[in-house]
Amino acid sequence: MRLLRFRVDNQVFEGILEGEEILPAAGQQFPRRFQLNQVKLLPPCVPSKIVAVGLNYRDHAEELHLTLPEEPLLFMKPSTSVIGPGDSVSLPPQSQRVDYEAELGIVIAKTARRVGLDEARDYILGYTCLNDVTARDLQTKDGQWTRAKGFDTFCPIGPWIDTEIDPTDLGIELYLNGERKQRSRTSNLIFSPAELVAFISGVMTLQPGDVIATGTPSGIGPMKHGDNVEVRIEGIGSLVNPIVKNDG
Amino acid sequence: MRLLRFRVDNQVFEGILEGEEILPAAGQQFPRRFQLNQVKLLPPCVPSKIVAVGLNYRDHAEELHLTLPEEPLLFMKPSTSVIGPGDSVSLPPQSQRVDYEAELGIVIAKTARRVGLDEARDYILGYTCLNDVTARDLQTKDGQWTRAKGFDTFCPIGPWIDTEIDPTDLGIELYLNGERKQRSRTSNLIFSPAELVAFISGVMTLQPGDVIATGTPSGIGPMKHGDNVEVRIEGIGSLVNPIVKNDG
Repeated sequence: MRLLRFRVDNQVFEGILEGEEILPAAGQQFPRRFQLNQVKLLPPCVPSKIVAVGLNYRDHAEELHLTLPEEPLLFMKPSTSVIGPGDSVSLPPQSQRVDYEAELGIVIAKTARRVGLDEARDYILGYTCLNDVTARDLQTKDGQWTRAKGFDTFCPIGPWIDTEIDPTDLGIELYLNGERKQRSRTSNLIFSPAELVAFISGVMTLQPGDVIATGTPSGIGPMKHGDNVEVRIEGIGSLVNPIVKNDG
Repeated sequence: MRLLRFRVDNQVFEGILEGEEILPAAGQQFPRRFQLNQVKLLPPCVPSKIVAVGLNYRDHAEELHLTLPEEPLLFMKPSTSVIGPGDSVSLPPQSQRVDYEAELGIVIAKTARRVGLDEARDYILGYTCLNDVTARDLQTKDGQWTRAKGFDTFCPIGPWIDTEIDPTDLGIELYLNGERKQRSRTSNLIFSPAELVAFISGVMTLQPGDVIATGTPSGIGPMKHGDNVEVRIEGIGSLVNPIVKNDG
């Protein structure tokens, strides 16, 4: 299933995508039939937190001649940074360099606290595309990544949650104005989705709708006003966001 | 006013403390009269996020011979780390050293986005005590502070929100098993509450009930199973939590 959230006439609905038609999700009633191209897509979930992982692509680590990490390195993006498909990423006046980072997003199905590796998959609702937008200059300046990765609009998520896809070997790409900038496969992930759910839930309780950003492959780079950025994951879909300057 | 949240017979209420009696907060109806010593206090607010600040006490910075920061250094604690007065801080098996950090907590009144310094006070509901519990060994190991400061139970908040106190020169102390370990005054804060609200809201939108942890003075140290830790702030009150070992 592909689960999505959307807005029509100022009402928010949850649906299931079937081809180009959207059917009501469990417990939802639609006033009429909706086609995908008639609605404004929203972020497909409403996370209380986004837990993200540093260096997690083997090819990227090798390219940088870095030792593979023994444990996932965690950081967080605030819920207020989340935007949906088509929403604008706003470049803040505090930064001179804002980068894209294409990532596979894991969406949590149910409350997860100290979940074992064997049962971790039961806590995953599905997968989506995520752009871990980062003010690279502030990331370096601060040392802590919270400000650099925490600005409003710095976490595009979508277009929907695929609940059935096998995440172990999916192509992941980033396109800037139609030009491919990042390209890898999730088979290069150092820590798998199940390992991340087990590790993170051993630290902090994950709640339904929470999102784990699984790290980005090589090829990160800057965006500027007027750009169009697209995260594309094989079998899931495409998350496109325009970039606009915010003069504060 | 002192605003608090509490539970009686599995119901959650919001009240105003008057001496030892709790009166209903706006919009609340109580089934009977409640005395402070008859109820289980909860965290006084339900933050969507806790934004915390690194080094922010002038005396602590001077003691460590550190240059004063030009800007606040931000990090986050997840909402799932919050506990209330009297709740246990759980020592996780992943860490061999878990420290207390007494802090003044700022509670946000209303949605704050790019708030100017002049108007920042209007966005502050009030002040409370906060313990920024930190797994010191993991903080050093990870570099990023998210895991070290993000464990469940690592953010005691309370006992209530004082909405009228002037935060500019309050004594702040930490007691471990009755022995004073930290002692300073908020007049030593490098960045004032208003400056923090302006700075942080220029990065990420703050929502009603969100909490800013304003940094800790010198004297941090470890806690062990069976300890009792108390954050005491002049004119606000005392936040006491027992420490228990969690064998995972």
